[in-house]
Amino acid sequence: MDDLVRRLAGIVGDRHVLVDPGVAAGYLTDWTGRFAGSSPAVVRPGSVPEVAAVLAACNDAGVAVVPQGGNTGLVGGSVPLGGEVVLSLRRLSVVEPVDRAAWQVTVGAGATLAAVQEAAAAAGLAFGVDLGARDSATIGGMVATNAGGLHLLRYGGMRDQVMGYEAVLADGRVLAHLDGLLKDNTGYDLGRLLCGSEGTLAVVTRVRLRLVPHYRQRVSALLAFATVDEALAAVTSLREELASVEAIELFFGDGMELVCSALNVPSPFGERHEVLVLVECSAQHDPTDELASVAGELPGLADVAVAREPGPRAALWRLREGHPEAINQLGPPHKLDVTLPASRLGEFVESVPAVVRSVAPEARTWLFGHAADGNIHVNVTGVATEDESVDEAVLRHAAALGGSISAEHGVGTAKRPWLHLNRAPEELAVFRAIKAALDPKGILNPNVLLPPAAEVAGTPA
Amino acid sequence: MDDLVRRLAGIVGDRHVLVDPGVAAGYLTDWTGRFAGSSPAVVRPGSVPEVAAVLAACNDAGVAVVPQGGNTGLVGGSVPLGGEVVLSLRRLSVVEPVDRAAWQVTVGAGATLAAVQEAAAAAGLAFGVDLGARDSATIGGMVATNAGGLHLLRYGGMRDQVMGYEAVLADGRVLAHLDGLLKDNTGYDLGRLLCGSEGTLAVVTRVRLRLVPHYRQRVSALLAFATVDEALAAVTSLREELASVEAIELFFGDGMELVCSALNVPSPFGERHEVLVLVECSAQHDPTDELASVAGELPGLADVAVAREPGPRAALWRLREGHPEAINQLGPPHKLDVTLPASRLGEFVESVPAVVRSVAPEARTWLFGHAADGNIHVNVTGVATEDESVDEAVLRHAAALGGSISAEHGVGTAKRPWLHLNRAPEELAVFRAIKAALDPKGILNPNVLLPPAAEVAGTPA
Repeated sequence: MDDLVRRLAGIVGDRHVLVDPGVAAGYLTDWTGRFAGSSPAVVRPGSVPEVAAVLAACNDAGVAVVPQGGNTGLVGGSVPLGGEVVLSLRRLSVVEPVDRAAWQVTVGAGATLAAVQEAAAAAGLAFGVDLGARDSATIGGMVATNAGGLHLLRYGGMRDQVMGYEAVLADGRVLAHLDGLLKDNTGYDLGRLLCGSEGTLAVVTRVRLRLVPHYRQRVSALLAFATVDEALAAVTSLREELASVEAIELFFGDGMELVCSALNVPSPFGERHEVLVLVECSAQHDPTDELASVAGELPGLADVAVAREPGPRAALWRLREGHPEAINQLGPPHKLDVTLPASRLGEFVESVPAVVRSVAPEARTWLFGHAADGNIHVNVTGVATEDESVDEAVLRHAAALGGSISAEHGVGTAKRPWLHLNRAPEELAVFRAIKAALDPKGILNPNVLLPPAAEVAGTPA
Repeated sequence: MDDLVRRLAGIVGDRHVLVDPGVAAGYLTDWTGRFAGSSPAVVRPGSVPEVAAVLAACNDAGVAVVPQGGNTGLVGGSVPLGGEVVLSLRRLSVVEPVDRAAWQVTVGAGATLAAVQEAAAAAGLAFGVDLGARDSATIGGMVATNAGGLHLLRYGGMRDQVMGYEAVLADGRVLAHLDGLLKDNTGYDLGRLLCGSEGTLAVVTRVRLRLVPHYRQRVSALLAFATVDEALAAVTSLREELASVEAIELFFGDGMELVCSALNVPSPFGERHEVLVLVECSAQHDPTDELASVAGELPGLADVAVAREPGPRAALWRLREGHPEAINQLGPPHKLDVTLPASRLGEFVESVPAVVRSVAPEARTWLFGHAADGNIHVNVTGVATEDESVDEAVLRHAAALGGSISAEHGVGTAKRPWLHLNRAPEELAVFRAIKAALDPKGILNPNVLLPPAAEVAGTPA
């Protein structure tokens, strides 16, 4: 191993190889603190040829590698749980000039989401994906995990933004197809195959991203309902009638009261409502009238608060985005991130608290999420961190209703034992065959996504 | 081979195995008549288990298979050029009930585009891809070729519509992931990998497609300009300012005059204009005013014709969609389908006629296409069908400007020799590795897409 570390230092320079666990600490433990590992070396290449040489060296030595971006993931996918070399891509942070004619920009894997958003804004455009960790999440990590976020309803997730890619295979070969053509049927779409592959197939070094219009006029509205059915019917109507809709979020009376009290946020309403839908529209013309006209027809609408200026809009969004912070004040929650089919979303939302109570009678369940995507963040408080019975119950319940055990956070290490709830053995066999074709020695992030045959939780023996 | 044909008949029934070349003729020659082959048997399975059994039998026998849908392709990708068994998917034509809550529908590979459009319309929704061959093109073929079409600007191509898939591997194993969840980060996206794979990785048997809103109000406008630069600047403005824009098409004065005279279509203008942009907007509110307001600001706009009713709209569209028919009256054209980067589109359009003349002085060049996608259909008349020098010159010119040699028609057999213009050896090696992982015996459509090492045209020796 010392030989390998010396070889790596020869490639990237001594100061970009961190071997002291104290110095390297930020690379060894994930954002949640739940997943931590150790590494013979954290390597920080500054160019694509350096990435290629580092991977070739590790591949020659048969040493496993964990690619790492902003290390903001929640499923233990970017830390060296098995003593891997950590390959940090953060130095590949160049944001190239925006191609204004194509509405595209090519960026290094280490560029943060915020840097891409700034570059797009400076060119009078926007980037279609947004999420809370924008200042630290890197584009490479967002590609590897196929990040979703707040605007998926309108623009899709990361996979829908990737118009071209550059990546390095385990053996150091560099692949690139960065033309960014909107129509280009000349073979397999390797760039999009890498989206969501969690660093197991190749290391993404650059991507060409599509940009979207910067809409000048914007309105947010918080809609209050007494029942889940009314709220979800409203979500469908809003999607169907408003071409300008950008986000439709869902939360509940308990969560809103918690956010208001824990974070000292004022409620726009005089009374408590059970179900809240937060909708945002944007367009070049003011979308307020069309939103008001559609909202006015919604059956069961109990109250509504509309905001057009940045300050009042942020106040409405704080009610939704304050959920994680407010919930954390009750102690570390179990955080589960599931998607339901549209036809089963109401049933899931109404039944999951009882499912949680059946395994943890003292627990409290908090639900919030992206209503139009069927994506619910299930947070559970009042359960010991190491007790995974709640996680199992919620994931099994989502899967039983036809849902996904991982909406936008990925599989990583955390959900690997449950992947069989969503993927049949035939698909897993093909995943492994593709993995073996691209990474025959299996050095790329070997402890995420693909379960070893022995690691399948909860299946009948 | 007789043994295999008997085994196939045992699987699908005698009447679904066609061995007489006269009876099978429609399966052996492609739509253009340019590509024709022969086959020991055309096999028409009626269920997924039958597809699986047919493929397993062929794989056991080491006999190659060409999957075939509507056989409407233009690049020789679905006919048995190497004596393959033809696997027709047309009997898998079930369109399942529309999932109105999810805006999705699951359909068999053999369903036609028109059948899907009808099912969507009956549910008050629409399908996001449209193209001229809608009555015969099948969904399976459209997935395999990643069809683009008229509305890619707004909704993307087939890859963007595929929310779930079912497919059969060469050895008969069935893969399926048909949940149709909008967010689902549980592994590699095999469904989208199959999009554009031209039947080389697996045989698609069912897909779950997303549907889009049915917009009730619609307006078309034909905008006339004197120069390409003015027209392309208008395309950018229209995209940027109009959230309701659904299509932006481009054609030219020569082509418009040809369509008007050859098809007896009236021109809406009193005089000839050099460059024409056809734009269509749709929304729930009438988009005419916002289109008129944006169009009124376009520099260089020489004339405009607006149509809101179906009849007048169809008359404007006839000017664009009549191009292939009118051009065919001049004799069989060479048809090339390329994409250019937005920043080089004007340069390509202005220079390609001279490029054609440099190798075929008597030829005439006709250009039309999907302006917002950078996708130009280059038709050349007055050149012998077998003379490929024009094809080579146009494809090389597109590639030299950073463009793709195949925008939406695919590679097939026709463009395989030129694939190296767009794809580096490293990418082609990965394509082959993935192909070998999924189809180790190489029985699936072996004569398309991936060039054998020896078949690389025009490279220096």
